[in-house]
Amino acid sequence: MTPAPHHDGSSLHVSNLAPALGEVVTVRLRVPAGYGPLAAVRTRSNPDHEPEWTDAVRVGVADAWEWWDAPVTVRNPRHGYRWMLQHADGRVEWLNQTGLHRIETLDSEDFALVAYPAPPAWMNESVMYQVFPDRFARSAAADEHPTPEWAIPAAWSDPVDAVMPARSQQFYGGDLPGIIEKLDHLVSLGVNLLYLTPVFPAESNHRYDAASFDRIDPLLGGEEAYIRLVEEAHARGIRVIGDLTSNHSGDSHEWFRAPLGNPGAPEEDFYYFTDEGNTAYVSWLGYASLPKFDWSSEELRRRFVSGEDSVVAKWLKPPYNADGWRIDVANMTGRLGAVDLNAEVRQLLRETMLQVDPDTILLGESTNDAVSDLQGDGWHGAMTYPSFTRPLWGWLSEPTGAPYLDADGGEVTESWFFGQPIGGIPRYTAREFTEAVTRFTAGIPWRVRLGNMQPLDTHDTARFATNAAPGAIPVAVGLSLTMPGLPVVFAGDEFGLLGADGEASRTPMPWGTEGQPEVAERLALYRDLIALRRSHPALQDGGFRWVHVDDEAVVFVRESESESVLVLATRGDADAAIPAGTLPGAASGEPVFGDATLAVSDDGAVVLSAEGPAFAVWLLPGVVAPAPAPTEETAEVSRGVVDADEQTPAEIVKGADSTGA
Amino acid sequence: MTPAPHHDGSSLHVSNLAPALGEVVTVRLRVPAGYGPLAAVRTRSNPDHEPEWTDAVRVGVADAWEWWDAPVTVRNPRHGYRWMLQHADGRVEWLNQTGLHRIETLDSEDFALVAYPAPPAWMNESVMYQVFPDRFARSAAADEHPTPEWAIPAAWSDPVDAVMPARSQQFYGGDLPGIIEKLDHLVSLGVNLLYLTPVFPAESNHRYDAASFDRIDPLLGGEEAYIRLVEEAHARGIRVIGDLTSNHSGDSHEWFRAPLGNPGAPEEDFYYFTDEGNTAYVSWLGYASLPKFDWSSEELRRRFVSGEDSVVAKWLKPPYNADGWRIDVANMTGRLGAVDLNAEVRQLLRETMLQVDPDTILLGESTNDAVSDLQGDGWHGAMTYPSFTRPLWGWLSEPTGAPYLDADGGEVTESWFFGQPIGGIPRYTAREFTEAVTRFTAGIPWRVRLGNMQPLDTHDTARFATNAAPGAIPVAVGLSLTMPGLPVVFAGDEFGLLGADGEASRTPMPWGTEGQPEVAERLALYRDLIALRRSHPALQDGGFRWVHVDDEAVVFVRESESESVLVLATRGDADAAIPAGTLPGAASGEPVFGDATLAVSDDGAVVLSAEGPAFAVWLLPGVVAPAPAPTEETAEVSRGVVDADEQTPAEIVKGADSTGA
Repeated sequence: MTPAPHHDGSSLHVSNLAPALGEVVTVRLRVPAGYGPLAAVRTRSNPDHEPEWTDAVRVGVADAWEWWDAPVTVRNPRHGYRWMLQHADGRVEWLNQTGLHRIETLDSEDFALVAYPAPPAWMNESVMYQVFPDRFARSAAADEHPTPEWAIPAAWSDPVDAVMPARSQQFYGGDLPGIIEKLDHLVSLGVNLLYLTPVFPAESNHRYDAASFDRIDPLLGGEEAYIRLVEEAHARGIRVIGDLTSNHSGDSHEWFRAPLGNPGAPEEDFYYFTDEGNTAYVSWLGYASLPKFDWSSEELRRRFVSGEDSVVAKWLKPPYNADGWRIDVANMTGRLGAVDLNAEVRQLLRETMLQVDPDTILLGESTNDAVSDLQGDGWHGAMTYPSFTRPLWGWLSEPTGAPYLDADGGEVTESWFFGQPIGGIPRYTAREFTEAVTRFTAGIPWRVRLGNMQPLDTHDTARFATNAAPGAIPVAVGLSLTMPGLPVVFAGDEFGLLGADGEASRTPMPWGTEGQPEVAERLALYRDLIALRRSHPALQDGGFRWVHVDDEAVVFVRESESESVLVLATRGDADAAIPAGTLPGAASGEPVFGDATLAVSDDGAVVLSAEGPAFAVWLLPGVVAPAPAPTEETAEVSRGVVDADEQTPAEIVKGADSTGA
Repeated sequence: MTPAPHHDGSSLHVSNLAPALGEVVTVRLRVPAGYGPLAAVRTRSNPDHEPEWTDAVRVGVADAWEWWDAPVTVRNPRHGYRWMLQHADGRVEWLNQTGLHRIETLDSEDFALVAYPAPPAWMNESVMYQVFPDRFARSAAADEHPTPEWAIPAAWSDPVDAVMPARSQQFYGGDLPGIIEKLDHLVSLGVNLLYLTPVFPAESNHRYDAASFDRIDPLLGGEEAYIRLVEEAHARGIRVIGDLTSNHSGDSHEWFRAPLGNPGAPEEDFYYFTDEGNTAYVSWLGYASLPKFDWSSEELRRRFVSGEDSVVAKWLKPPYNADGWRIDVANMTGRLGAVDLNAEVRQLLRETMLQVDPDTILLGESTNDAVSDLQGDGWHGAMTYPSFTRPLWGWLSEPTGAPYLDADGGEVTESWFFGQPIGGIPRYTAREFTEAVTRFTAGIPWRVRLGNMQPLDTHDTARFATNAAPGAIPVAVGLSLTMPGLPVVFAGDEFGLLGADGEASRTPMPWGTEGQPEVAERLALYRDLIALRRSHPALQDGGFRWVHVDDEAVVFVRESESESVLVLATRGDADAAIPAGTLPGAASGEPVFGDATLAVSDDGAVVLSAEGPAFAVWLLPGVVAPAPAPTEETAEVSRGVVDADEQTPAEIVKGADSTGA
């Protein structure tokens, strides 16, 4: 890759990441010295869907970069903008979140400023640890709870049974006091954000079929244990977020039991009953145990989301003090046929949180393309897979396609990948990995991209290690902790657990195996890489720039004025040649992780070499940037009109006789 | 280009282009014989933002194509779907509106079925002719009208003065009776849809600053002339649509005059007054003469759009009987800062039209990326430039960059292109032309794409001929009449008029010059190509497939079961080699326009040759398609879940021990 003009949403290039409507933000473009000559550099915004242009001024050259500043007035809550580079020879280039283009670009791929309230700063400083309570740790107190009727009791050492009914009823009895007993494990790992899958009463091991949102499951220790868990976590510098399903409840939920078969009940309009007797209803993908919420109900909105006493509010306030929510099935919430109330619901959710405790985060589950819902108006980020996790699997796994036993114990003859019947794990090159990452992040404002969860796997997927290419695990873990986004460790990955599918991966934690050499090695890998992420702010919210991509290896740099972090990730042997001018300061690069070599030739070209698979990191000096141009109070803009009539402005043409032939 | 799998939204590939919610539509994929072997072909929909899959069945081979059918149940009003091709060797390919992909694709680029009410069939059969009334034809009756105070009278032979105040006040006095006198010119051209820019009373030559929506400007002949024009046009098989501004009115509008400086007037909330005395207000791009409408006003909605007596309804009903509307500044309508009521307004517009006269069309002006507004819920199509007109200029013009006189008579030192300060006309290759067309149409459902206007120029732009590359005009006119979309002739182009900008192009029609050789030749070009479009249904709503693209030339085919039309468009000399299997039936191709040769080798490869610039068309046999698989009453679907809990389904992995290392 030759050195290319660069811009991203980081503070290195944007003067204000949390602007208010009407504020002028200075955006900065970096152009490699000698890239021009450029006749003009401009920004093109599109307020109210009508283009607006501002001129950039050349503020100077530092290291190998020429810097241009332009004012952008934030006119819409999601304010898109792109760069136009006009070369002296007449060539025009456009720069947006997919890169450089010779032809015009789409609004949907513009860079974007966001005027909605910003997430708390701690979100970007977090490394998330996901716990599935039934399988994490069982305290002595758990023995005192009678096993519920629906449950099939399992001993901690029993293998997971992925076939129904055990699939959802096999019950290991992990509880909140058990988690409290293991909090020091989280501390030793270095994670600082605990995400608990549901803890409300339910009739399954996963508890996504909530029977109430008003209580903590007594089997988990009830409210007392929950309050103590949050206190103990906070005392250790660990925040805690919960898991709430806004798309549906369980059919044992108190809100559903009241109107079921009972027309006229106040909760009747919370759901989509389809017959007169309230016995038939719409449910999640047709599963009767999960009746779907109807968000056109004002009373549902009041009880669930809005107001001081709502479910959303209650658990964020004392004495519970949770730090936010991950919303389950956020992608389908409020959507049914011709109805789409999703934006209203996600915005209402965040409004309530801002009233109750603005120092909280809101993440939405959206397992596929999440772009349309991730514009900053509600979700701070998403649990989504196509922008990182799936491409990572495609690149760093051993493709497989063997049949497996489905929920009913029958052999599935077609093979799935993250819910897609596509013949198993696809085979991506490193280049295709980067193409997929770009494709599924280009439509998302930078600030929201930083909130997107980057797990290798979750309670809904097989575990990455199960199919990892030999030696690829450090590469995968390393990428999850160094690429822009919210790193996530699914409890057990740090022990090297395997899991053949989303059920088998819900494995009881193998406490006591920490001393086994391979486990100790894996734990050390996680500790080292988590420490790296947490000790380098550039990895948390620094800029992001690819500097080399081939079929085996990717190289990128996370940048800020205080430090830069250079990352090499490769599946095969790497010999990445990076042209002079791309990485000024590389000569003083200090290796901080992994086994690879960095060589700088006299002309400034950089060569990174490693025997693959490898993951290596170097600490580089911060980016030297000239002082920004003073932000103007009001930006000079041109709207492409030259008078008050409706014309698109005059095109430039030779003085032609306009009266005809 | 090697033969590739193909699908588009045409009836060759979709069983029902106007489905209702809940209906099952059969979609068909064509795969070149020998492309596989394929282990599976599936569709992937995304109802309520959750993937749904159906299996395609191989229905047979015809000519060189293998056909696969799959059922898709229309679950959302805009129901996206894509194809997944799983090769026997494990490779996976995705097909969407941008083409074939090795990696996952975006929801926004899916094919899409639309369950909103369909436009009338006549839209696709139309060739539009745009008339700017002040400059088209002046009847004797016009002499009886006193020249209004604001006007600067001009004789028909005077040159257009593009400098303010003449820019908007130079008044030639063309009128509706004048248009009636020239209707036979439209008949002789073969156009069958007349689009009139505004005819309401105003204080400018363009009349976009409406003083009322309730009357026809007396200077144009008033209501009587309007009624007669529509009757005379209909009698000749020509439909008529009007031009309405939903973003703003003129400051002389009766609705604005009432509340201006008069707090408490009923129309006060029609606009955004910003002071207590109603003297300051929001206007279009800050031009005080064009106060912006506030669509949160229920009374504005009632008077303008909804209800039997609204402006939108009135002119579609007897005695006026217009056939639809082109909505000016549709892109900004209802949008201001944090407010976006655009979808509500465009949907309300269409609802009223459906009540009053469903046999009407609704087009919205959206001069840049219109994708987000063109999903079929309101606009049947758009007056938009990046998906055809601007790329066409980029490819077929002589780039220029000379300064010009702006509205104030000052020399503009930076050069514009369609409202973009990018240094004049960009320089596109033929390949870049196709890339731009694909980029800006891929996000639009096929049915809506067919409604997108395809002018070479309009009253808002310079005239294409002014900058056309030598010999390129037949190529440009030919493409506007053969590519998917609504062809538009801006009155005067057929006489070879030039125009340096959006003002200078508003040239009085040079009646009487028809006999001049170069004019006669241009008129014949338009007549022949319009006749070609209107006589071949495949050019109106047939499928669309690129079969060759290089830097100089493009070749595509419009396809149906009854006929196919092969088109070559080239700027330079063309020697396009099209591999065997791409164009079965080419051997019997019959030339119907242009000067080029088609040769078919023994193995079925096709070579098209021409001296450029050239535009040539051949008539080919219709596509031979096997009988479709019977549409199932209810489609078998899989949602990527294997039981009623929340997991993404199990991935396929070798039977791994899920209890850990």
